[in-house]
Amino acid sequence: MNFMTFKVQENKEGFLIEYNSRNLLTHTFSKPAFYVGYGEAEIEMYRGNFKIQDYKISRVPLKHFNIKKDSEKVYIDLYSNDGYSLSLCVKEMEDRLYIEFERSTGTINRYWIRIDADEDEKVYGCGEQMSYFNLRGRNFPLWTSEPGVGRDKSTYITWMADVMGKAGGDYYNTNYPQPTFVSTRKYYCHLESSAYMDFNFKNKYYHELEVWSIPKYIMFETAETFIELVSKISSFFGRQPLLPEWVYNGLILGVQGGTDRALEKMNKALEKGVKLSGLWCQDWQGRKITSFGKRLFWNWKWNPQMYPELDKKIWELKDKGIRFLGYINPYLIKEGDLYKEAYEKGYLATKLNGEDYLVDFGEFYCGIVDFTNPEAFEWYKGVIKKNLIEFGLDGWMADFGEYLPTDCKLYNGVSAEIMHNVWPTIWARCNYEALKETGKLGEILFFMRAGFTGVQRYCTLLWAGDQSVDFSIHDGLVSVIPGALSSGMMGNGLHHSDIGGYTSLFGLKRTKELFLRWAEMAAFTPVMRTHEGNRPDENFQVYDDDGALEHLALMTSVYVKLSPYLKDLVKQNTEEGIPVQRPLFMHYEDDKNTYDIQYQYMYGKDILVAPVYKEGVSRWSVYLPQDEWIHMPTGQEFRGGYVEVDVPFGKPAVFYRRSSEYRDLFEEVTKLFKEMVKDDYGS
Amino acid sequence: MNFMTFKVQENKEGFLIEYNSRNLLTHTFSKPAFYVGYGEAEIEMYRGNFKIQDYKISRVPLKHFNIKKDSEKVYIDLYSNDGYSLSLCVKEMEDRLYIEFERSTGTINRYWIRIDADEDEKVYGCGEQMSYFNLRGRNFPLWTSEPGVGRDKSTYITWMADVMGKAGGDYYNTNYPQPTFVSTRKYYCHLESSAYMDFNFKNKYYHELEVWSIPKYIMFETAETFIELVSKISSFFGRQPLLPEWVYNGLILGVQGGTDRALEKMNKALEKGVKLSGLWCQDWQGRKITSFGKRLFWNWKWNPQMYPELDKKIWELKDKGIRFLGYINPYLIKEGDLYKEAYEKGYLATKLNGEDYLVDFGEFYCGIVDFTNPEAFEWYKGVIKKNLIEFGLDGWMADFGEYLPTDCKLYNGVSAEIMHNVWPTIWARCNYEALKETGKLGEILFFMRAGFTGVQRYCTLLWAGDQSVDFSIHDGLVSVIPGALSSGMMGNGLHHSDIGGYTSLFGLKRTKELFLRWAEMAAFTPVMRTHEGNRPDENFQVYDDDGALEHLALMTSVYVKLSPYLKDLVKQNTEEGIPVQRPLFMHYEDDKNTYDIQYQYMYGKDILVAPVYKEGVSRWSVYLPQDEWIHMPTGQEFRGGYVEVDVPFGKPAVFYRRSSEYRDLFEEVTKLFKEMVKDDYGS
Repeated sequence: MNFMTFKVQENKEGFLIEYNSRNLLTHTFSKPAFYVGYGEAEIEMYRGNFKIQDYKISRVPLKHFNIKKDSEKVYIDLYSNDGYSLSLCVKEMEDRLYIEFERSTGTINRYWIRIDADEDEKVYGCGEQMSYFNLRGRNFPLWTSEPGVGRDKSTYITWMADVMGKAGGDYYNTNYPQPTFVSTRKYYCHLESSAYMDFNFKNKYYHELEVWSIPKYIMFETAETFIELVSKISSFFGRQPLLPEWVYNGLILGVQGGTDRALEKMNKALEKGVKLSGLWCQDWQGRKITSFGKRLFWNWKWNPQMYPELDKKIWELKDKGIRFLGYINPYLIKEGDLYKEAYEKGYLATKLNGEDYLVDFGEFYCGIVDFTNPEAFEWYKGVIKKNLIEFGLDGWMADFGEYLPTDCKLYNGVSAEIMHNVWPTIWARCNYEALKETGKLGEILFFMRAGFTGVQRYCTLLWAGDQSVDFSIHDGLVSVIPGALSSGMMGNGLHHSDIGGYTSLFGLKRTKELFLRWAEMAAFTPVMRTHEGNRPDENFQVYDDDGALEHLALMTSVYVKLSPYLKDLVKQNTEEGIPVQRPLFMHYEDDKNTYDIQYQYMYGKDILVAPVYKEGVSRWSVYLPQDEWIHMPTGQEFRGGYVEVDVPFGKPAVFYRRSSEYRDLFEEVTKLFKEMVKDDYGS
Repeated sequence: MNFMTFKVQENKEGFLIEYNSRNLLTHTFSKPAFYVGYGEAEIEMYRGNFKIQDYKISRVPLKHFNIKKDSEKVYIDLYSNDGYSLSLCVKEMEDRLYIEFERSTGTINRYWIRIDADEDEKVYGCGEQMSYFNLRGRNFPLWTSEPGVGRDKSTYITWMADVMGKAGGDYYNTNYPQPTFVSTRKYYCHLESSAYMDFNFKNKYYHELEVWSIPKYIMFETAETFIELVSKISSFFGRQPLLPEWVYNGLILGVQGGTDRALEKMNKALEKGVKLSGLWCQDWQGRKITSFGKRLFWNWKWNPQMYPELDKKIWELKDKGIRFLGYINPYLIKEGDLYKEAYEKGYLATKLNGEDYLVDFGEFYCGIVDFTNPEAFEWYKGVIKKNLIEFGLDGWMADFGEYLPTDCKLYNGVSAEIMHNVWPTIWARCNYEALKETGKLGEILFFMRAGFTGVQRYCTLLWAGDQSVDFSIHDGLVSVIPGALSSGMMGNGLHHSDIGGYTSLFGLKRTKELFLRWAEMAAFTPVMRTHEGNRPDENFQVYDDDGALEHLALMTSVYVKLSPYLKDLVKQNTEEGIPVQRPLFMHYEDDKNTYDIQYQYMYGKDILVAPVYKEGVSRWSVYLPQDEWIHMPTGQEFRGGYVEVDVPFGKPAVFYRRSSEYRDLFEEVTKLFKEMVKDDYGS
């Protein structure tokens, strides 16, 4: 069978699966690669935060095996002598190696698979991971949920969030998990399942993947470079359309509070020279005050009381080159008329006994549109088409997707525990199809925080979720970078974040400094967008501060000036699936130092960004791979190694490659910096 | 085999072990009672706090079995068809049922055994448990350790303790775990092992016992009443000698700071009418200041600089009827001469590679005397005999015992992971033998917080460890009661606590109110003793407050007045093994309400104590079983049910049975209350 590119080598001790010269799976009698067992899970959800405990009743090694081969496939039966068994089929298809799980016997609902590892191997991915880019040394439960407030058990904020609302989270909590990882052995591995999973990268010589239902397959694909590898990943999972042209006109300004207020803030920003591409009013459908802050009224249509004349203004704005963006999510507030309609049509998920299921979103209750019912899905898509697209919105935050409770009953008859992780992808598809069917793909921009396998194909832009308004490592400004890099490795090449962060709780308040540093980073991401946060009145807002507006004028001008380069990157993403923000090692594979850098990134192949993520800093240390670099704000030249630069406000630690074909453009940006930057943006 | 009182009933589905009409263990093919497997543990110790994680590589049900019987024993072989097996021998011996673990095969270091349970069954014990008396619904890791500061993840104190020193603890952390539980099905079950264990009482129809090494046996003994059952338990594990007669003279006053200061505080208490039996100076061997507070200098002999003339004063005090008590623990500070001697003699535990092992006790470092070396054990016993007993001490706190690191090398060649839990019992035996061999049993009183299986036989008195100086449920005043009741069910009939608590950290300070309430409880325990706490200068001290001294005069007078009754209880403990403090159900078995009461207790069969454990309370609700009760401080009569009484300071919620043979004595106590109680003890 030497025409196969994969080998299943058998000896009396066990077998080895090899693919493109990579040992992927070694099974021996004493170190089996497959375990099966039975667990009883307790899954508790409180406002999107999950407490999941599993009582493992059995975990049985499948030591024995039989191998049969035909011309194209290898069949492996694994078994214990006690009635547990698992049948696999190994085959190659479209340059990918599939290990299909055909069936199992015995009382089994847990599966563990061990993938060969090297001691110095690093792995990345698993969706959008906010705390750690290199996943080695930790385990990562894969379950879409709230990401946590603070996400660090040693901080006061996390502890308070835990005590007050079970909401503190931990390093692995994410809106967007995915059972896919990329190895520095130059392969990626995808486990096709939507059950609860836990990928454990703690062990020296193997990675252990746990899954709570028989998966469809494990798939491997290899490449010779990381660029090629990520291109293959995105080819498999799907790629995003281009960003709409209007995005390159500047910042999407997040404002709330009604037509007059929004326009007033917008005009102030414009007067101060801020380049704007959009005006984003997440409360366009009205709002609700809770103890968390100002929340939205979850009934998705224009609220003419709160936004009088928006139906006219939206077109006037478009004429001025500024697009209007709104908000939607897949839940319906009980008091709204959309809920009533969905309820009457039987489009809402119910309790297992058929009773109404209302989910607590924090002092208000909502129904869940049952997307597994094709009629309900089409109906909701219709809501998007009519209430959002026809009304004239050019974009929206397509929020949430993580709250499917595991104890509800769905139309398609599949357990909600299995559908839970899929929900964000279905939600993305609902938005995507609304765009596609109205011919608006590439013109309308919706952005999501939730995701799962396949979201790449549907979601036009990710946003990093609800960071705390601080400089904390696990939930502040800098957590956005591992989020961008990991989701980028999964084929989501377009990422951005709330400039200034979102969550202000337990005394934490956004400072002006935080806002300025965040804006300096955001100018080197695909999209710039501000958010007022959950408690706008108590937190720093850029439109209240002339200095910050001037700083934002600079950063948005830089963004706009760079747009030819950015457009090229976005095109690469759409055509080749290479993300806009990339880890350093993607372009400097031979430089071992780059593999653990998670707080710097390449913005395309020619720009290196090292955001200042600490408070009160005037100098910043940066690692530059061996190359010729120019500090963009000053024109100062550097070679590789650890260097330091001054980082007053308005002079971010951003470098471009001297040999770039965009050098002329970058020199213009340097000129712009020199012209526009001020010595003082106020304190 | 009808002469056996146990039955092993076999059918084709499985087997059932029955003993004295109780189904103890049901094994079927589909629900096996035995699992074996392999785990890789990570055990980290930081200052006596352990983080223990186990990666369970396998957990295999032993579904198959063979049973062989002879005239006295039943042999059960359990096995999987994959090389895992376990051989048991069931037999009765001295009215106890033993299931002995004879051997196992396969790669195994984890064992799980399921004991039959009823849905409404309750279980108690597992050593000294401070948070929950009824253990049902939770799992209890059994590993001697620091008990935790706060012990409640929702409190600020616990969080701070966790962040600052990994020391917050949780509901199951205890100085004294024991793999023994008592069931309301009127049996107790003991698993003979000292490995890490975890007893899981969460399941409806079984209790699952996990142990990390093959145990020697599981043993069951049954009885018709709880009194009989606890008597059998203590008969098996051993019973305490009587308390010394001098204890009944009053309170043991805890003071520190040298001869003059100690005598001054003692005299002030005596002047105010406080009845004293002892003066306890834990710093008799000198001290050391750390950030935690005033710590002791761990070199166990009189410090004449700090306690000048103590060698004379100790005998003068004895003449006045006041005994002097000191302190010792099984570790030696590196700077002391005892360390030097032990080191030179090779009596200290070492690292696995033979290097010196110094344990961090919080800003100072100590050697561990290797008690598995008989010479070292005898030498340390000699230190106790010479430096403590010969010097004239009449008692001491025999502190610690929980800190044996799992990565040290011991003389007996047994893994420190297996010896860790045994250490407190060996430490107790060292003290016990020093007393016994000098003829001082029943005359000298040492008290310990640490324990394990068998500590009953050696430890003359338990104390409840280091409560926080507050009213918190899991670590304050009231946590002492589940501690007394659970350890009492294990055969430790003598228990007491630091009046006013011990641990003052992170802004927590002892209040006068806490001290008064604690003293009101302590008067109805075997021994009254105060402690200045870890930060004496910052916390309320009774000797600084005239009102509190007057209150203490009342409570110590009550204690002394009640001593004939208490002596009778202590005698019952020594002779019959019935603890002094008992759960209500021990005397009211038919009253279902009593089985979940863990914050009231019987003080012998005739007194019911319901300590006030909340702040700022003037009335207190008490559950009285059906009987005729008299409120001791007032003489007011009650019948059973939920009643309320006024609880001003000096009038605790204590009731006696009208029909008690001690009624005359109790009436005298009521008279004493009425004569001595004041309307106002100051604020």
